[in-house]
Amino acid sequence: MAGSEAKERKILVAVDEGEESAYALSWCLKNMVAENSKDTLILLYCKPPPPLYPAMDGTGYLFSDDLIASMEKYSTELAESVMVKANGLCKEVNDVKVETRVERGDPRGVICKMAEKLGVDIVVMGSHGYGMIKRAFLGSVSNHCAQNVTCPVLIVKRPKSVAPNNCSQQII
Amino acid sequence: MAGSEAKERKILVAVDEGEESAYALSWCLKNMVAENSKDTLILLYCKPPPPLYPAMDGTGYLFSDDLIASMEKYSTELAESVMVKANGLCKEVNDVKVETRVERGDPRGVICKMAEKLGVDIVVMGSHGYGMIKRAFLGSVSNHCAQNVTCPVLIVKRPKSVAPNNCSQQII
Repeated sequence: MAGSEAKERKILVAVDEGEESAYALSWCLKNMVAENSKDTLILLYCKPPPPLYPAMDGTGYLFSDDLIASMEKYSTELAESVMVKANGLCKEVNDVKVETRVERGDPRGVICKMAEKLGVDIVVMGSHGYGMIKRAFLGSVSNHCAQNVTCPVLIVKRPKSVAPNNCSQQII
Repeated sequence: MAGSEAKERKILVAVDEGEESAYALSWCLKNMVAENSKDTLILLYCKPPPPLYPAMDGTGYLFSDDLIASMEKYSTELAESVMVKANGLCKEVNDVKVETRVERGDPRGVICKMAEKLGVDIVVMGSHGYGMIKRAFLGSVSNHCAQNVTCPVLIVKRPKSVAPNNCSQQII
């Protein structure tokens, strides 16, 4: 790879608020992206789908419009915060061309769909993918993507001994 | 990555007689290994374990010593053939430092064990991993490794439209 012959690659990195996805992004920047390359890093964040059937909630409060608006605001702010953090990491480690995408839905479907739609060359993600709580309900996002995405999938597991965002023990 | 700052990385590539693993190796050579890098590619081939309980076979022929010797010979020749092919691919695409390892046992366990033992930086494998027939019995090798190997795992799926060993549609 790399060198002057290298064409532009599209690398889709699934990011979330977890430390594992930050580690995966760091690892990718240090191991996949060559300096001065023409690669484009597409950071994909997946917002949770809106709660279903608000009218069926009996409390008249839990799923009120106010609460839904608050959840939406929180979700949007969280997405922005994750993207700012991820962008910062990109600038810090490797000044690569970065695009950001925020989509909504089940991360398993969203990642597969976006990988296909954007015609990316590789998908990079943490092994847990999209947080431990969601994983408990949805199953392993990375397993699903490894099986269903047609391009290569790189699954990065954060070593337990490594502090967040620090992959200096990996090769630079 | 890459550049003069790059340290030596160990990249473990699981190879077998299938076209998918050849494609995974090609993809790795073109997308993961920088020219003139200090990376070492470790090609790992896993021979099937010897048949169990030969004495319990009622036919007195199927698991005779002769047949076991023939199977072992075939298995060894197959391993050599795969390694010659894989080595040729490495020389052809990218003149990287290559080591070969032939181990015996369940590929799922062997890959995880060797990744740990050799302290590799990344494991690369085809998504089916170790042939369709074995996969039917053993389950997905790549899924198992993605869950159990502690370092990053790159799972490469061969596009249906791509001829064996040809990943020219990928980035060079």
